[in-house]
Amino acid sequence: MRLTEDDCRARFTGARVARLATIAEDGSPRLVPITFVAVGEVGAVGEVGETMVIFSAVDSKPKSTTALARLRRIEREPRVCLLADHYEQDWAQLWWVRADAYAEVLTGGTEHDTGIAFLQRKYEQYGLQPPAGAVLRFVVREWSGWAASPESTT
Amino acid sequence: MRLTEDDCRARFTGARVARLATIAEDGSPRLVPITFVAVGEVGAVGEVGETMVIFSAVDSKPKSTTALARLRRIEREPRVCLLADHYEQDWAQLWWVRADAYAEVLTGGTEHDTGIAFLQRKYEQYGLQPPAGAVLRFVVREWSGWAASPESTT
Repeated sequence: MRLTEDDCRARFTGARVARLATIAEDGSPRLVPITFVAVGEVGAVGEVGETMVIFSAVDSKPKSTTALARLRRIEREPRVCLLADHYEQDWAQLWWVRADAYAEVLTGGTEHDTGIAFLQRKYEQYGLQPPAGAVLRFVVREWSGWAASPESTT
Repeated sequence: MRLTEDDCRARFTGARVARLATIAEDGSPRLVPITFVAVGEVGAVGEVGETMVIFSAVDSKPKSTTALARLRRIEREPRVCLLADHYEQDWAQLWWVRADAYAEVLTGGTEHDTGIAFLQRKYEQYGLQPPAGAVLRFVVREWSGWAASPESTT
């Protein structure tokens, strides 16, 4: 069964890990798992709006060539895809949510720091060691999702 | 820490779910979770060789437009990426394995049936209801993987 956009947002937001697909220079896809936080876009007056923004930190310390390559790929092709899914033995519980998004690399500034703060609030592990380096900011352009049954849990 | 190719194969083979990235007609990436089975390539004399082949079934019953779109994308652009990863609260246990691969759509024949048989052997759920429809066959052209620590479990 297809999921509503609201259900997609709720399930995605609650997930602890997502997978990020980017496009390599040769046009082929690249995949990596990411931690992330999904929040409503914060407007100029500090209000949280309906557009959903997703933040993820790129650990570039110690200097990782794969992490830096990911940043270059996003700067060249900002169209990315994010996926959160749930697998278990009982296939009636399967579900997945896909977010087609535009990605942006933030190397500093207010928006970068906001992303870090939200990530620290979601993951206690980041509280111990705040992520250093760039933040990826994703603006979702389309949600899609599927669940094997209405009873599937988040 | 980077994983050796042998470690990549072993962890990937043991995973129950992977994510498949394909390229849409507009050049942007698309993601979906898949069940799969990874086996050594079976040679003409029935021996299992070193090249690893991955099979996955595409459920095209009931006719799913998203599943059929995936087949079209693969026929247009066979370069795909597969990812298996492990997430848990203890980040010392994190790992992921990526397989850059070429994909092929098998709609019938011996290789198709072999794929179905291997899938049924891995997933008891397929034993109850054998997957109908096409089989995707992936030939891995490059393995890469990472683990947070040597102790990370598969």
